Amino acid sequence: MGKTAYYDNAATTFPKPEKVYRFMDVFYRECGVNVGRGQHMLAAQASALVAETRKLILELNHCPNKAVVFTPSATEALNVVINSVVKKDELNVYLSPFEHNAVVRVINHLRQSFDISIHTLAFDKLAFIYDLEMIKRQFAENRPDVVIVSHASNVCGVLAPIEDICALSKTYEAKNIIDMCQTMGLINTNLNSENIDFTVFAAHKTLYGSMGLGGFICDPNAKLEPLIYGGTGVDSANPNLPESIPERYEVGTQNLPAIAGLNAALKWIRDIGIDSIYKKEQANHRCLLDVLTKYDNVKTVFVPHYREQSIGVVSCVFNGYGSDNIGQVLSDKDIVVRSGLHCAPNAHKYMGTFPAGTVRFSVGYFNTNKDFEQLEEVLDYIHENS
Amino acid sequence: MGKTAYYDNAATTFPKPEKVYRFMDVFYRECGVNVGRGQHMLAAQASALVAETRKLILELNHCPNKAVVFTPSATEALNVVINSVVKKDELNVYLSPFEHNAVVRVINHLRQSFDISIHTLAFDKLAFIYDLEMIKRQFAENRPDVVIVSHASNVCGVLAPIEDICALSKTYEAKNIIDMCQTMGLINTNLNSENIDFTVFAAHKTLYGSMGLGGFICDPNAKLEPLIYGGTGVDSANPNLPESIPERYEVGTQNLPAIAGLNAALKWIRDIGIDSIYKKEQANHRCLLDVLTKYDNVKTVFVPHYREQSIGVVSCVFNGYGSDNIGQVLSDKDIVVRSGLHCAPNAHKYMGTFPAGTVRFSVGYFNTNKDFEQLEEVLDYIHENS
Repeated sequence: MGKTAYYDNAATTFPKPEKVYRFMDVFYRECGVNVGRGQHMLAAQASALVAETRKLILELNHCPNKAVVFTPSATEALNVVINSVVKKDELNVYLSPFEHNAVVRVINHLRQSFDISIHTLAFDKLAFIYDLEMIKRQFAENRPDVVIVSHASNVCGVLAPIEDICALSKTYEAKNIIDMCQTMGLINTNLNSENIDFTVFAAHKTLYGSMGLGGFICDPNAKLEPLIYGGTGVDSANPNLPESIPERYEVGTQNLPAIAGLNAALKWIRDIGIDSIYKKEQANHRCLLDVLTKYDNVKTVFVPHYREQSIGVVSCVFNGYGSDNIGQVLSDKDIVVRSGLHCAPNAHKYMGTFPAGTVRFSVGYFNTNKDFEQLEEVLDYIHENS
Repeated sequence: MGKTAYYDNAATTFPKPEKVYRFMDVFYRECGVNVGRGQHMLAAQASALVAETRKLILELNHCPNKAVVFTPSATEALNVVINSVVKKDELNVYLSPFEHNAVVRVINHLRQSFDISIHTLAFDKLAFIYDLEMIKRQFAENRPDVVIVSHASNVCGVLAPIEDICALSKTYEAKNIIDMCQTMGLINTNLNSENIDFTVFAAHKTLYGSMGLGGFICDPNAKLEPLIYGGTGVDSANPNLPESIPERYEVGTQNLPAIAGLNAALKWIRDIGIDSIYKKEQANHRCLLDVLTKYDNVKTVFVPHYREQSIGVVSCVFNGYGSDNIGQVLSDKDIVVRSGLHCAPNAHKYMGTFPAGTVRFSVGYFNTNKDFEQLEEVLDYIHENS
């Protein structure tokens, strides 16, 4: 068996840059103390690492005056943010057609207690892009209170024009929440805008850091309702959580090895340059599409006409075979993909691929020509046996 | 400057066993994929690691038929469990006098919406042990609905007779929640009892695993209300969370490197033997007390008469100096302690050390004679300058 060809970067990027693995290990060995909870030099070093990591995230997104809150996952970040802005009656909440269960299940839970109207942002199913003119009309008809959009779909990679959508909804004073799990660190994005209220990220996806860490970027004066209560290391005599950001939302022990990993990853991105990373990913995206579109038994779904309108996440259906079957064949040949619904059933309903799902291929910075050759061999084999 | 003497093991044990660091690094490098979300061999390996880690936790606690739910922290585990059992009116909730803000702030938040009566479990302030006879009378007077007890205080190390307390409260059908953050992996405890409903743990404390991971042990049929909603990798078409444990409470990407660390740590505990680890910790506890009690300017607080009634967490006040001052002097001499309130203001109020707090020394498996010599030197110096 040869090397594993990894096409599941939308689930988690793999491998990570060597310096991410190394720094996680070294930092945790040398300085694995509890952040913000001691006077010793080790505690100071750990606190400095956390502060520097926040700064690097803000620099990457060109928004030095915003605040970064760390959470244990992007899912939890979305829960905190959505719970804070959606717990009201008579709200119009707009979602993209592609939202993940980390959004949909939270909203669905809140709908059981609050009178919320859900609207789907208009999308042009022929051009496979968002329909801004139609969105404008939607907003005029039903004033948006909250807008939640994935910058890129984790199912088909389609990009949302987040600046345009948020500018439109902000004229109605909507709260805008952007999920950048599939794009932060990959697409050079300027978040230095008052139109974007909350931007959620996962450390272990396009940021090439570790699992166990996510968070959100927001205004340093944002007022949210915490979901988790507990010790903060500061203001301990207060029976309530402190009011300050980020302490109010970062209770319990910080995940220091994961923050070290993200720190190293952000420096890796800065050293290579986000635009070079994007270029490499787009090259791999092109290689992937070149392979997939060679086969008449493989149908790619929702791939925009211009490659820059999506990222390297491609969903496919295979003639005559279910997605799980193909997933198994690929897996047996040491090719890692993800088949099924990708925790985003609404996206598949919208795309017409529910409930069978698709076979999702997602590339990253580290895919090689060898990976594409390996994929081609297996797709030849599947084609011959179709 | 010599080697750092680390006495902050109650915040997080440090260092970890070599094999914990090594396995976290190796496993994440070789198998850093998304658990339960793919068919490939790597995903199967990652899933097997998670399943084995649950099994090792249950074995350690002699309760093979219970279930383990992983959460990003013990704080979050407490939030999930407490939110589920305390969201009712007219409840009598009993807390130990020593509860952490991870309990107290959650309860305080819930009190804003529910009519909850808080009671403090009776404690004998002369003998420094829980007063079971008095607790029996308390329960008879105000029937317990929920009992929350730290197995060992994170401020003064006092142990609670959890089996006895839970047996008493269970005669009233109370829900019993035990916080074993300071004892799991250190004190051989049999959780194979229907009297204990939920047992919370932190991977990075006495279990010698990584930050970023905690959880709880419960009946496999326990019904809780989730706090966080999102993708589960299974049952994705369901707009609600699945009903099954642990999936219902483990949304989003699992923290694989931390689970690998805990896995290695649990095997390290099994290999050495929990009773040997306890013996070593008790020896270090004795060394610590021998040093601290030599000085007439140092007063230890709430140390039981028998060493086995507490663990190696000792709070001190120093004549003539605030705890932060002493913390700074110790820190300057490369001794890591934690001064202040230790996120447990109620414990300090009860002990009479609020709001100044104490200097807390907490030992672990890896403290050495050299550490105690170093501490003695600095305490000599402080004594001379008092």
